[in-house]
Amino acid sequence: MTLIVQKFGGSSVSDAASIARVAKRIVDTKRAGHNVVVVVSAMGDTTDELLDLAEQISPHPPAREMDILLTAGERISMALLAMAISELGVSAQAFTGQQAGVITDTSHGNARITEVTPSRIQESLDDDAVAIVAGFQGVTQTTNDVTTLGRGGSDTTAVALAAALKAEVCEIYTDVDGMFTADPRIVPTARRIDRITTEETLEMAAHGAKILYLRAVEYARRYGVTLHVRSSFTENSGTLVTDEKNQEGNMEDPLISGVAHDGSQAKVTVTDVPDVPGSAARVFEIVAAAGANLDMIVQNVPTTRPGVTDISFTLSTEHAQPAVDALRKCYDDIGYKDVIYEEGVGKLSLVGAGMRSHPGVSAKLFGALRDANINIEMISTSEIRISVITRIADLDTAVRAVHQAFELEADEIEAVVYGGAGR
Amino acid sequence: MTLIVQKFGGSSVSDAASIARVAKRIVDTKRAGHNVVVVVSAMGDTTDELLDLAEQISPHPPAREMDILLTAGERISMALLAMAISELGVSAQAFTGQQAGVITDTSHGNARITEVTPSRIQESLDDDAVAIVAGFQGVTQTTNDVTTLGRGGSDTTAVALAAALKAEVCEIYTDVDGMFTADPRIVPTARRIDRITTEETLEMAAHGAKILYLRAVEYARRYGVTLHVRSSFTENSGTLVTDEKNQEGNMEDPLISGVAHDGSQAKVTVTDVPDVPGSAARVFEIVAAAGANLDMIVQNVPTTRPGVTDISFTLSTEHAQPAVDALRKCYDDIGYKDVIYEEGVGKLSLVGAGMRSHPGVSAKLFGALRDANINIEMISTSEIRISVITRIADLDTAVRAVHQAFELEADEIEAVVYGGAGR
Repeated sequence: MTLIVQKFGGSSVSDAASIARVAKRIVDTKRAGHNVVVVVSAMGDTTDELLDLAEQISPHPPAREMDILLTAGERISMALLAMAISELGVSAQAFTGQQAGVITDTSHGNARITEVTPSRIQESLDDDAVAIVAGFQGVTQTTNDVTTLGRGGSDTTAVALAAALKAEVCEIYTDVDGMFTADPRIVPTARRIDRITTEETLEMAAHGAKILYLRAVEYARRYGVTLHVRSSFTENSGTLVTDEKNQEGNMEDPLISGVAHDGSQAKVTVTDVPDVPGSAARVFEIVAAAGANLDMIVQNVPTTRPGVTDISFTLSTEHAQPAVDALRKCYDDIGYKDVIYEEGVGKLSLVGAGMRSHPGVSAKLFGALRDANINIEMISTSEIRISVITRIADLDTAVRAVHQAFELEADEIEAVVYGGAGR
Repeated sequence: MTLIVQKFGGSSVSDAASIARVAKRIVDTKRAGHNVVVVVSAMGDTTDELLDLAEQISPHPPAREMDILLTAGERISMALLAMAISELGVSAQAFTGQQAGVITDTSHGNARITEVTPSRIQESLDDDAVAIVAGFQGVTQTTNDVTTLGRGGSDTTAVALAAALKAEVCEIYTDVDGMFTADPRIVPTARRIDRITTEETLEMAAHGAKILYLRAVEYARRYGVTLHVRSSFTENSGTLVTDEKNQEGNMEDPLISGVAHDGSQAKVTVTDVPDVPGSAARVFEIVAAAGANLDMIVQNVPTTRPGVTDISFTLSTEHAQPAVDALRKCYDDIGYKDVIYEEGVGKLSLVGAGMRSHPGVSAKLFGALRDANINIEMISTSEIRISVITRIADLDTAVRAVHQAFELEADEIEAVVYGGAGR
């Protein structure tokens, strides 16, 4: 009997009717002869409402109590989902992160899973029941305090359980039919991706694609978990994220998997930094101390103005202001001319394992952007990705131009968003 | 340093502003030099909303999952209250029933506390923090499953913790200024009771007074916990429930503590039951098997119709229909003439430890009811209580008449209800 882990996000369980629909789907899987473990997020906007309550009470609530508060949402959805499944005549038991054996470190609000000991889940499966597990939460080893796993935490819970229980597949249910060659809101003709490697998915997730969270994909890659991204609103086939070879034939990898974009980045330029050893390092030390992770970095070659250089970098907008403030405070320390802050730049990333062996990809990308009259401000690459920074106003046009140039369009409109947004 | 346990019901923590007000009160107690353990219920109508959600999904939800669902409410309120106290500069930690060491049996929905091991609460107090504990919930010893304690469960949690931690007093905060000689909604001139014994409080609670729950009072009586019923909306002195002798003097016990009433009872009469050994026993066996607890029982002496007798009993309305149905099914078995079901009868109970030594109390009670032209249908008594059944339409008039006859009125209106209803 194969084991399938199914994860349902908040938009799939937003009210009693949605919960009943999801329960039907789980029962169908069970009756098709599979063991099923379900990971569920909080209903609809529950988590936002709890955050809002906390904000009314305290601007800086203690992290331990914040985690107790936020995990209430999953208790509600997991209990209701278990009831709905029982109502359909299939035995179901709900388990907290603690009961499911999801052990984490003590970093409240953004805890890392250190161990998964799902003995109670296994017992539940042995009793022929469906096990429902609260996503997004774990428990510390020593103090039994509840922790939360941060953004995309329910995906991480699902992948971690799939790995620990050696599941056949981890199905991630969402409100679209899978991963697409571009965001369908920008490119309506985007094509559904049938299969994709974890490496490509990591690059897509790290550079703006919103369907899967980076951490869950990293976990899946490390433990060899096959992910299946599907819509909870249709029976369509979705996207398979796996590093196993396609059984159906020995097709070449497609050249390009998709175009990711990210409009939430900011660009900072420190001008006329003394071109002496240690100056650039000092800039990055200061930014790191302010809690910011840099994305792209460009250091101009000092030709026109000897002895000084410009350093530009991008980072997420939410961390930009503290980084800029920290740099401005260290004027005397570094001795630059100015710190220029540009909020909201656009990043376009072209991802595809096939580009390893096709040197013409970047030329084609830059050609497409040139033809669309879009200026490139920065460039960074990995083995299977090329990213460019554009003005934010140009980003959508750039995505459409590149998507078309690489002939990624579907023959007809495939992408439909069925529900609202979830966690 | 004395330890005070404070329990706040749902109406005291119905929104962010109420939570802040309660936090202020707790911090005042802490700053006055006491250790404080707080037990808190779910916010306002949270529990009813969760029940409503469950009902939409399943008419008979599994009890284990129902308890997981219902305990979400206390997680929210306990976390928010801890945040609000921290915001006032006092360290506070929130604990689930499990973390607080509230161990119960496995009767989901109505679990009994079997053990309290509050070592984490003690550690928290030793760290000079306020410990906030989720009311209404515990955990099973072997499976670590969450349980709920049934109606009035938060009061029971508070009393159990007060007993285990040897607290000086267990303060029960509610939306009125304490216990009154009658329900102020019926008798506006009802007087606040300053001190009352646990025995009298048990009789009051068992016969309709709504301020304290029977089970919590039983627990307090067994473990010698002093209860202090107070309003969370005022600084008024409330009601002390204790069996310790009044230090202030050696006043006699007051004759009467108060008048309780209960309009949620039904009356069933089984007519012409054969007057042979075992017939009455058979009636009560059938009713017990239908899950009903009887309150009063009257068996008429068979004078006018030899060989048969009438048996009447009262029970709570919610259990009446199953009992009546069960009796009707056993017509052949018992051989009665008819089962007469009267929904909604009124029960008035006069309670007072002083009546032990005053034989004139019942005469005065019956006289007052006669003067008010109220017919008495049934009577039952204990050492410190006399209860009568009246028609439901006469109940309020009866309460006012008896309250006046025993001169229980306050000189001026004392009773104000400040908030809504809570658990």
